[in-house]
Amino acid sequence: MTEGTAVRVWRNARLATLAEGLPGLGIVENGAIAVENGRIAHAGPEADLPAIFAGAESVDCGGRWVTPGLIDCHTHLVHAGDRAHEFELRLAGASYEEIARAGGGIVSSVKALRAAGEDDLVRETLPRLDALMAEGVTTMEVKSGYGLDTANELKSLRAARRLARERDVTVRTTFLGAHALPPEMDGDKDAYIDRVADEMLPAVAAENLADAVDGFCEGITFSPAQMRKVFDAAKRYGLPVKLHADQLSNLHGAALAASYGALSADHLEYTDEAGAQAMAAAGTVAVILPGAFYFIRETRKPPIDLFRRHGVRMAVATDCNPGTSPLTSLLLTMNMAATLFGMTVEECLAGTTREAARALGLAGEIGTLEAGKRADFVLWDIGRPAELIYRMGFNPMHARIRGGKQA
Amino acid sequence: MTEGTAVRVWRNARLATLAEGLPGLGIVENGAIAVENGRIAHAGPEADLPAIFAGAESVDCGGRWVTPGLIDCHTHLVHAGDRAHEFELRLAGASYEEIARAGGGIVSSVKALRAAGEDDLVRETLPRLDALMAEGVTTMEVKSGYGLDTANELKSLRAARRLARERDVTVRTTFLGAHALPPEMDGDKDAYIDRVADEMLPAVAAENLADAVDGFCEGITFSPAQMRKVFDAAKRYGLPVKLHADQLSNLHGAALAASYGALSADHLEYTDEAGAQAMAAAGTVAVILPGAFYFIRETRKPPIDLFRRHGVRMAVATDCNPGTSPLTSLLLTMNMAATLFGMTVEECLAGTTREAARALGLAGEIGTLEAGKRADFVLWDIGRPAELIYRMGFNPMHARIRGGKQA
Ligand SMILES: [Zn+2]
Ligand SMILES: [Zn+2]
Repeated sequence: MTEGTAVRVWRNARLATLAEGLPGLGIVENGAIAVENGRIAHAGPEADLPAIFAGAESVDCGGRWVTPGLIDCHTHLVHAGDRAHEFELRLAGASYEEIARAGGGIVSSVKALRAAGEDDLVRETLPRLDALMAEGVTTMEVKSGYGLDTANELKSLRAARRLARERDVTVRTTFLGAHALPPEMDGDKDAYIDRVADEMLPAVAAENLADAVDGFCEGITFSPAQMRKVFDAAKRYGLPVKLHADQLSNLHGAALAASYGALSADHLEYTDEAGAQAMAAAGTVAVILPGAFYFIRETRKPPIDLFRRHGVRMAVATDCNPGTSPLTSLLLTMNMAATLFGMTVEECLAGTTREAARALGLAGEIGTLEAGKRADFVLWDIGRPAELIYRMGFNPMHARIRGGKQA
Repeated sequence: MTEGTAVRVWRNARLATLAEGLPGLGIVENGAIAVENGRIAHAGPEADLPAIFAGAESVDCGGRWVTPGLIDCHTHLVHAGDRAHEFELRLAGASYEEIARAGGGIVSSVKALRAAGEDDLVRETLPRLDALMAEGVTTMEVKSGYGLDTANELKSLRAARRLARERDVTVRTTFLGAHALPPEMDGDKDAYIDRVADEMLPAVAAENLADAVDGFCEGITFSPAQMRKVFDAAKRYGLPVKLHADQLSNLHGAALAASYGALSADHLEYTDEAGAQAMAAAGTVAVILPGAFYFIRETRKPPIDLFRRHGVRMAVATDCNPGTSPLTSLLLTMNMAATLFGMTVEECLAGTTREAARALGLAGEIGTLEAGKRADFVLWDIGRPAELIYRMGFNPMHARIRGGKQA
């Protein structure tokens, strides 16, 4: 070992490696993780630790469980203001019309975001990010989509990129210009989609502000034909795509996303068997978002069994957003996926690690405890991994390691 | 002001006083709280602050919202072990029989509690208590009910009493010997109830270990006639009663509790109009427990509208327990009460302050920001009180004051 090389070993650990080849959670009892220059050099039985690491500085994990760093692969974390007043009005019996008249709905989030400066946005977002990180999140996806014009979408994405400089976390940004129709477009969805594809997306790409492109395909927002225009533009700039699909009705959004080789299709309450088959064939991940399902009192569940049957990979994410999922706990999200959708402990944990990495196109980089991957992992004060999903409103995180450093 | 008297003023605050006479949350803008010897001397407009407090040491709240300290009025916080494995098995498709064979169910909690020493119990419980306190809880109720014999019920209650010495929190203990039938009773419920009433309860009373007596009235546990025996014994020892009532079926438990002038009847999914009327007449508080409803995927909701119509006071609590509600966030509990049962922001906040105090027989002592009450309150980093209920998995607590001291 060259002197000065950053080498460290975490020993006396129980590893839930989530490694692809292993059964279940890929558990290794009496495990150790050796880290060299921020990457995992060995993750497996302590007895198999290469001799080269014998003299390395080591951390005794005290028999604690270690999982890969958690990954929240679908969020609208950068937003301005909240929609608590709307929530309050709805509980008090106000109709959607009354709420709209009181300035509610997504328009209020667009207005607030446009009024906020980039610094304001970062400052408002950090407490939400801190809440997620405090539970072991090491990688976040963050979408734009409340700006809905070039300047404000760029501002949102710049704020998202800045989060990674303000905190010890990886941020993947997604351009979601096709999130909703801004009020100034006077109902002209086609004209807005042209603007998204021909003006906003090129500007985003020119500044390299997005790692992917997303859209909201639904009766109340954009049609499959409109989404194709956006995806075709994304292709021209070499950006991978994702889609908010089949949340409130079946527009065959999942199949559409799959036909573009999308990284993921998200929500999917109304996805049918053909959609699941197409996703499986394309390797498109199903991102399950139980927070929105719970918060808006949806009753139609995503077809988890179909996804299982066809071998569609499933991720689980907060969908943190002010209108339909003001949720900043990935642990609680896993509990919801289990309780509301019957996802197993293994599916929930893979869904916030290995499969969430896949949904971000980072499957080779993070998401499991395997040699070669970035040394992002979490030590937990738990008796078994199921506890991470079973408890509600409890944070058993002991330590969070990112790139081999305690973060 | 005598020198040496502990006087302090919190100024520049927005108060949600929850005071009985005021409309809604009893909001006072530009408010101040003067505290003398641990009690509230003034809570109202800063402009009305008595001159006597002019020179007192003061804390600038920076315009923050202040609520009464939160009260969790129904918990089984003292327990040993968890039931995460059972949760995992159920998700993996195991039947109740298979789970029972694997050692699951309440019997496993009884076994674990009996095996634990009092110190173990306290040590295991403190992280749960800390989670609740971190969100502004200043008063807790804690039940026994996993010991199910004299020695182990006494041990549980002693552990509960000790929590208040280990942490800066008020603990009210409840003897719940009639929680379930212990395995050694071989199905003889009557014999066990006799033991609860004639042996366990007297022992609990002799050591002054309980502030109230509770039972679980349900087909799977104890009948109304059996509960009457326990309540009659409680009466002899001058202890107020509460009841787990009408959770899974309508045995008219709410009315039974009311007929004994119970402080509260809890759960109440199946309570009918006669039950609501009886509770209203008796001043018995309805304790709403959405965590258990959510966790066990119950579909029958408690009749919130009936309670409103008849003027039944409603409290909201975590029901923290390992089998049906492993929930240690009172903020999340309020979100569940709103989202799942349609309770309003005002009902949720009153339910964890003023009405929770009433459910513990402490309405004169805590639960509102009013002169004469103990100076238990919380400063929050929020824009409006609805935010406390709207967010999921986010803790905006700024400071927690108990008895006039930052805790
Ligand atoms: Zn979304
Ligand atoms: Zn209970």
